Amino acid sequence: MKKISHSTIRRLSKYFRTLTQQIEQDIKTISSVEIANINSITSAQVRKDLSFFGTFGKRGLGYNTSELRDQIGKILGLEKQWSVGLVGLGNIGKALIQYNEFKTQGFNIKAIFDVDLNKCGKDVRGIPVYNINEIGKVVSKEKLEIAIIAVPAKVAQSTIDIFMASGVKAFLNFAPTTIKVPDDVLVKNQNMSIELEALSFFLSNK
Amino acid sequence: MKKISHSTIRRLSKYFRTLTQQIEQDIKTISSVEIANINSITSAQVRKDLSFFGTFGKRGLGYNTSELRDQIGKILGLEKQWSVGLVGLGNIGKALIQYNEFKTQGFNIKAIFDVDLNKCGKDVRGIPVYNINEIGKVVSKEKLEIAIIAVPAKVAQSTIDIFMASGVKAFLNFAPTTIKVPDDVLVKNQNMSIELEALSFFLSNK
Repeated sequence: MKKISHSTIRRLSKYFRTLTQQIEQDIKTISSVEIANINSITSAQVRKDLSFFGTFGKRGLGYNTSELRDQIGKILGLEKQWSVGLVGLGNIGKALIQYNEFKTQGFNIKAIFDVDLNKCGKDVRGIPVYNINEIGKVVSKEKLEIAIIAVPAKVAQSTIDIFMASGVKAFLNFAPTTIKVPDDVLVKNQNMSIELEALSFFLSNK
Repeated sequence: MKKISHSTIRRLSKYFRTLTQQIEQDIKTISSVEIANINSITSAQVRKDLSFFGTFGKRGLGYNTSELRDQIGKILGLEKQWSVGLVGLGNIGKALIQYNEFKTQGFNIKAIFDVDLNKCGKDVRGIPVYNINEIGKVVSKEKLEIAIIAVPAKVAQSTIDIFMASGVKAFLNFAPTTIKVPDDVLVKNQNMSIELEALSFFLSNK
C-alpha cells in the first residue's frame, strides 16, 4: 500500500467518529459535504481521502454510513484485538486502567509494570502487575504488541528501549518528553502539556 | 504580533521541554543543532522559530539554556496563572484533578461541575463541585478563563456552548467528538482514540 500520511490517518479517525455519531442518530446516508462540514475541512479533501482507499459515494445519494464506517474501521485495523502492556501505576496509569474505551477499541491491557515492589505480584482489575525487570519475559509470554508509557519523563526513554529490545514497535507515550526511536517504530505522544501551552499562548496573545 | 501557526507553538512547547531537561542536567548552553537533534527537526527550523521572537544564539556558543527557557515560557504565557473550570467527575475528570502538572503550569482548577446531584455541593481535593446549571454564575464569580471538558461525547458541544455563552473562549476537550466553535474560540482536543487508531493502523499495515 502507498505510504499514507499521519494527517490522512488522523482525518480517517475523525470520519470514523463522525460516522459513529450519525449511526447513533440512525442516519443511513451521508454526503462528503456533510462529513466535511462536521470536521471543518473541504469536501474535496474527504472525497480524496476516501477514494484513496477505493471508496466512492453514489452521486446524489452519498455514502452508506454503516458500510463506510466498517470500511474505515478495517483500514484503521479497528476490528483487530491488540495485546497491550501498561507501565507505571501512578495517577495516569490508574486512570487508564479504568478507561473502558481501550477495550472497546480492541486494546486489551494484559500486563501492568511498576517499579514499586509493593504493587508487583498483585493485580488491578484482574490485570497482573509485574516488576519492570520482567518486561522481556512478559512481552513474549503475553505477546504484547503495544506499550503504554505512563512513567516519569526521565525514565521514559529507557523504558521504551527495554520494550524495543523485546520487539515491541508501537507506543502510546504519556511522559512529557521527546522519545528517540528508529524508523520502524511508532511513538504516539499523549502530552497534555503541549495542549495546555497552546491554550495559554492563545489567551496571552488575544 | 504576526499570527503564529499552531505548528510553531507546538515546536516552542517542545523546545521548552528540551530546555527544561537540559537545565535539570545542569547544562548551561545549547546550540540550535542540539535542540534540533533532540526534536528530530532541522536546525534551520529551530533558528527560524526563535529568530521570529527576536531570540538569537551566539555563534559558537549557542543559547543560554535558562534564558532561552524563560523567554519561550514568556511567549507561551507560562508565567501567568489561569482560572480553570473542570466539567465531569468521571474517571478522566478524577485523574485530572490529581494531575499536579496543571498547577505547575499555572492552570488552577477553581471549580468542578457535574450533573450528579450527589456530588454537587461537596468538594474534591478542596475544589467545590457545582451543578452544571450553575456554570454561568460560577464562571463570573471565579473568573474562569478555561474549561476542561471531560463529559460524554454527546453532551460535549452543548456543555461548551454554555461556557461560550458565559464568555469562556479556551477549552481543553477530552470528549471524543468534533466541536464547532467560532474563530475567536480555541478548542484543543485531547483525544486518545485518535492516537490509538494511529497505532492500530501502523501495526495493521506493517
